Parts: sequence; C-alpha cells; structure tokens
Amino acid sequence: MRLTIEQMAKASRAAAMQLARLTSADKNACLRALADGIENGAAKIREANEKDVRAASEAGLGDAKLRRLMLSDTAIRQMAEGLRQVVELPDPVGQITREYTVPNGLTVRRMRCPIGVILMIYEARPNVTIDAFALCFKAGNACILKGGREATESNRVLAEMAQSALSARGIPVEAVTLLTTKDREEIKSLLRLEAYIDLVIPRGGMELIRFVHEHSRIPMVQHFHGVCHIFVDASADLDRAVEVCATAKTSGPATCNAAECLLVHEKIAPLFLPKLAERLARDRVELRGDAQVCKLVPSAKPAGEDDWGREYLDLILACRVVPDIRAAIAHIHRYGSNHTDAILTNDPASMKRFLEEVQSSCTLVNASTRFNDGFQLGLGAEIGISTSKIHAYGPMGLEELTTQRFVVEGGYHTR
Amino acid sequence: MRLTIEQMAKASRAAAMQLARLTSADKNACLRALADGIENGAAKIREANEKDVRAASEAGLGDAKLRRLMLSDTAIRQMAEGLRQVVELPDPVGQITREYTVPNGLTVRRMRCPIGVILMIYEARPNVTIDAFALCFKAGNACILKGGREATESNRVLAEMAQSALSARGIPVEAVTLLTTKDREEIKSLLRLEAYIDLVIPRGGMELIRFVHEHSRIPMVQHFHGVCHIFVDASADLDRAVEVCATAKTSGPATCNAAECLLVHEKIAPLFLPKLAERLARDRVELRGDAQVCKLVPSAKPAGEDDWGREYLDLILACRVVPDIRAAIAHIHRYGSNHTDAILTNDPASMKRFLEEVQSSCTLVNASTRFNDGFQLGLGAEIGISTSKIHAYGPMGLEELTTQRFVVEGGYHTR
Repeated sequence: MRLTIEQMAKASRAAAMQLARLTSADKNACLRALADGIENGAAKIREANEKDVRAASEAGLGDAKLRRLMLSDTAIRQMAEGLRQVVELPDPVGQITREYTVPNGLTVRRMRCPIGVILMIYEARPNVTIDAFALCFKAGNACILKGGREATESNRVLAEMAQSALSARGIPVEAVTLLTTKDREEIKSLLRLEAYIDLVIPRGGMELIRFVHEHSRIPMVQHFHGVCHIFVDASADLDRAVEVCATAKTSGPATCNAAECLLVHEKIAPLFLPKLAERLARDRVELRGDAQVCKLVPSAKPAGEDDWGREYLDLILACRVVPDIRAAIAHIHRYGSNHTDAILTNDPASMKRFLEEVQSSCTLVNASTRFNDGFQLGLGAEIGISTSKIHAYGPMGLEELTTQRFVVEGGYHTR
Repeated sequence: MRLTIEQMAKASRAAAMQLARLTSADKNACLRALADGIENGAAKIREANEKDVRAASEAGLGDAKLRRLMLSDTAIRQMAEGLRQVVELPDPVGQITREYTVPNGLTVRRMRCPIGVILMIYEARPNVTIDAFALCFKAGNACILKGGREATESNRVLAEMAQSALSARGIPVEAVTLLTTKDREEIKSLLRLEAYIDLVIPRGGMELIRFVHEHSRIPMVQHFHGVCHIFVDASADLDRAVEVCATAKTSGPATCNAAECLLVHEKIAPLFLPKLAERLARDRVELRGDAQVCKLVPSAKPAGEDDWGREYLDLILACRVVPDIRAAIAHIHRYGSNHTDAILTNDPASMKRFLEEVQSSCTLVNASTRFNDGFQLGLGAEIGISTSKIHAYGPMGLEELTTQRFVVEGGYHTR
C-alpha cells in the first residue's frame, strides 16, 4: 500500500514537470471546460452531495458542519463562476517581477515559476476540491487532494470532472489526484515524501493541523483557526457598528473569518450593547459576556475564561468591555490567532495604532472580518488563509502558489 | 538546561516585538556603530580568529574548511563594508508593495512586516555571524545564532560587538543571541520551540541540513548543497568560456556557488578541452572526466559514477562530453541540486531552452555560477541561498526576511 502512495506521488511529480510548460491558453481552455462541465453536471453533483449530507446527518454531524458540507445550486454555480474568474486572472508563471542591471553589467530578472507538487488536506467543504485544483493548476502545479471523509462522494464526482477536462486536452490527469484513504498511517507516509511533494497545505480544525505539523517532513503553510476580533472604539458610528458586528457572525458562522469576540470600549458600551443585543436576538446569536456585558444585557450568558480565544464556528459571540484601545490590543495579542482582526473607529490615531500593533494576516478598519477572503480581497480565489508567516500570510491566491527564481544574463562575466 | 533554552527563546520573542517598531534611523545608527566597532576592533577579531584557526588546524580540519574559517584583514574590512551596504538598503518594514481598491470600495494594502524570531544554524564561516545579524535586524527580526564550533572564539567576539552597538542605543541585546552549546539534545529542544521561533535557516553540509530537517517543528528554509553545472554549448566563445569555467572553480573553491561539473558539447570538445586543461593546470585544478574527456586530456583522471552530482568544495572539477543541449539538461535534472546552473552560448535558441527547462534557484547565461550571491545580484547582502521553493528560492536578502500582511480600510463594510 505504501508503494502505491509513493508511485502516486511520483506520478504527480512527473505531471508537474509537464504542467510547468503549459501555455496560459491551454490551462484556461481546460478550466473553462471544467466550468461548463460543472454547470451541465449540476444534477450529478447534487446527487452525490445529497448522499454525503444524508450519511453525515445520520452519523450526527453538527449543524455548522452540515452547512459547510452542503452544495446548494448557488454553491455549484459559484464553483463554475470561480473557475471562470481564475481563467480571467493573469497567469503568474513566467512573469518577470523585477528586472535590473547590476554595476558589473549583469542583467538580473526575477521570474515566477511553479512550486511543483502541492498536497492539500482539508475537511468538510467539497467546493475546496475545485478551488484548490483550479489555483494549483493555473499556477502550473500538480495537486494531491485529501478531502474530508464526509465529502467523499461529492469530491469524487468533482475530481472526475476535472480529470475529464484535463484528458480531453491531452494534459496528464495526474495534475489532480484525489485521495480517499481513511488510513492515518498512509497519510503519515505521504507526509514523508518530501522528494516528490513540495508543499502541504492543511485546512481544517486544530486536530488536523497538529497531525500534519507533527508528522510532516514537507514544508507546510498552515491554515490555522480563526479567532477573529472586532474592537468597537469609543468614536465608532454605533448603528453601523452594530450591523458590522452582527453580520460578521451571521453571514457565515461556520467560516474561519467570522467574528468570534467583540471588544467594546467602556465609554460607548451602555449605548452600544443593548442595540447590539437586540440585533443579535433577531438572528438567534447567543451572546456570552463578561460581568459588565451581562449587567448591560440581561439576556447575555456569563463568559468563562475558556470563551476568550475560542473559535465557536457557530451562532455564538463572546463579548468583553475594555477600558481603552491598549487593553483591546493586549486582549488580541493574548487570545488572537493572527488570522483577522478589525477595529471600528472614526479616530485616525486609533486606526493607526491598531494597524501598527495588531499584525494579524489581515487587519481591517471599519469593515467586517468576513472580508479576509481571497475573492473579497481581489485575489480571484484562494486556496486557504495562511496564519504562519513563512511563504504566505493571509489569503493565498495564484501568486502565493508560485515561487521566484533568478535568471541572469551576462557577457562571459567572471568573478 | 531545557528551561534555559526556552527562556532564551522567549526573550528573543519579546525583543522581536520591540524590534518590529524601531525606526529605520535607529536601526541604521546601530549598524553603522557596529561597522566602526569592527574596524576599530580588527586586532581583537584577528586574535580570536587565530585561536580558532590554530585549534582547528591542530584538530586536522581540511584546507578548504580552514580557508572558510580564516578572517583576513580583507575579510574583516568586508564585514564592516557589508554592514554599511545594509545601512544603505531601503528598510523593507512597513513598505506597501501593492495598493488597490476592490469593486465594493475596500482599499487593500499589502504591507511588509518582520517574520519575528529567526534561528540560524551554520558552520565554519564566522563572517556569517555579522551578515546574519545585520540582515535579520534591519528587517526587524530577532536572531538566534548557532555557529560552527570551530569558529566559537571569532563568533563570540563578533556577537559581543553587535550587542554593544545595540545596548549603546537602548535596544534589547536579545536582538542577537549567540548559542555556543555543543549538545545536540539542546539543539533538538530548541528546534521544537515553534511557539517562540518563526523560522530556522540551516546553512552548511548535508549532515546539518538533515539533522535540522529531521528534528525541526519550526518552518525551515534550507540552504542545501550547491552542485553547480556549466554547459559549454557548441556556439560558445571558447577562449572566454575557458576563463569563465576556470574562475568559476578557482575564485572560491570552497563556496556553494563554485562550479563542480562542466558539460561540454561534443562538437567543440576537441578544441575546448585542451585549452581548458592548460588553464586549469596553471591553477592546479584536478580534472575528472568521462572517457571522451580523458581521451582529449591525457592528464585528466577518470570520473566514476559518484563524481556526478558531487560537491567537491575543493580544487577538483568533474567534466563530461554531451551530444547536445538535451543531454546537458537531462544531466542537470538528474544530478543537479537546484542551486545554480549556467550555459555558455551564443545561440539564442539554446539560451531560451536552457532558461526554460533548468529551473534552478539561479540560472545564468554567459556568466560564472559564482554570481549567485546576494551581493553580486544586488540584494546588498544575503543570509543564505535557498534551494527549497517555499518562501524564498535563491539568495535571501532583506525582503526575504520579511513577510507581507493585508491591511484593509472600509466604510463600515458588511458582507
């Protein structure tokens, strides 16, 4: 069995050598065909997905996770749309990012090139299968995809559609390999194949990240948990702040960029918190607060120490009253996860201080944490949001799936 | 003892938080003072270095390694000069590399920020102590330096000079920590402190790299061995090619960017090889060739299979006659180390093909492999040459010691 895993990785490496030389036109034609295939095959995708959802529901998967697993018609249309957006993005491979001449006359160019073979290990969401393939492929990389076991049927149909689009154009189908093994030992041996795999990107819960971190010899860009904070400053526009805070939770409670904790300046807490509580009640969001919050909002539940720094991935929001911006920043340094943190303020000094001192992968002023997303930030798509600072920090799009090499031209220069 | 290592790493982390906010002026003043300190303290450095060299020589260290250990007056002047060059380089911290507005009106900026704490593990060369500190520091990072045991005295004096320059300006001396432990278990526990250390850069032989790779839980940018090739194409200007090939070995036989293997097109081999052999004999470079080389150069020694892909780090050069560019590229793909490879040619088609198919960290046309170096390629300095494709590929200068975060401004945007 181990041999099979190794042969599979070797085939990915061989495919990657060919992918590195594909033209943009070839890659785009394949992605367009896949978009059409997904739209035309929507019924087949839904059928497979319904099987997954039924099985997961019977197995007692939580509501938030079930929502992540489900592929609605809208979600299927979005996958196809996402592919067409990737087609429109400039091909990073071969791009010259800098060109200059050094004093001795050598011309130096930095040129983007593919990374090679990328292993992606992720949990429930089946649309990741298509997003990850599209981005890896357009950036000239082969990918090995290990999706969540709950999404097996959905992932299988989606990967088959990608492989048909590839083989119809004479491109090696090993450009995408879907792994459906449930054997942890097999995954461990895969994680030691640094000779064939250049990068591993785990996307999912703490347990998954820790497993990969512990066993991988392959460089890893980790997509860690998102404990996202919003600090509502004394100068914030309160009605609009209520709207930002509430939707930062409700528009995607199971996403990593959803707000998990609000920090509210004590000066505006008596005015702000009742307004917020009313709005949250409408959306059935549970509020867990410190003593001051509970005093101002009788319906709030008391927060325990373990509510700070917690990723609920559900309709629950922690809330704390802070005396000033210093305390808000200290809370974020202590409990944050370097993922996404926002300030709502009309005060330029607070804005500046927050942006300087909170060095998360994405820091926002007067915008919802939900905007930390490759689509929303103009990358066209994303393969994950890195919370480690090496190689990429924040949403990873096409460029982050390439590396840069040096290309030098001289006139028989010696040194 | 383990506690001490952990406390030390914790202090580096605390220093890094402060370093991230230093102004460029403060950092530059400190680096200038260190340059002066090194020039004024040259006698002290030489004295310490002589102790190291004497001990290493008595312990039977090889010639190539002794040359790397030695700090001549020129080398000491170059260290000071290198520091002043780093002062002149633009400070990457806070640089906005991109700024754009997405359709919904959000302003998105990508801003460079320090990585945090960088652990550097290296072998004999003591000048790395100063180069590494200067680059890490200017990029706002704290560094932990674990130098080679042969250079202990030299490194100690150099690190003390750096710490005096820091403390004179009220900057925490934990910005640079020199580790002199010889205990491998201690290094192992250090390599598991991912909570305090963000990046490890090993620079040295295979054994060192493997050790770090096996035991590190910290992301690693590896500076692997340099098995650098030069392909002399049929159209090359032969006299100038002789000069490039010979100096690519002789100007720094113990460096990672020295040429180790020449691939010579069979059409010009009968003319080229005797000229080359004459030039190499002058510099006492041993030539090891395949059967065709040995026929054309009677003084050449026959190369064995283990001469291909070998890093001599000495005055030895492997040489093989190849039928065409395809064979040359195939040899590089099989035996190269993704470090540096060059082609000497006057044919634009060969040039293009070589640059496309050989995707080493640095590929050169009509220039010596010795130019793959941060100084030579205009980075101002380098902390190493990465042969892994994640985070950096090729010489790593100031920018490669930072990461980029997203900074977003909106008008109470919701999603």
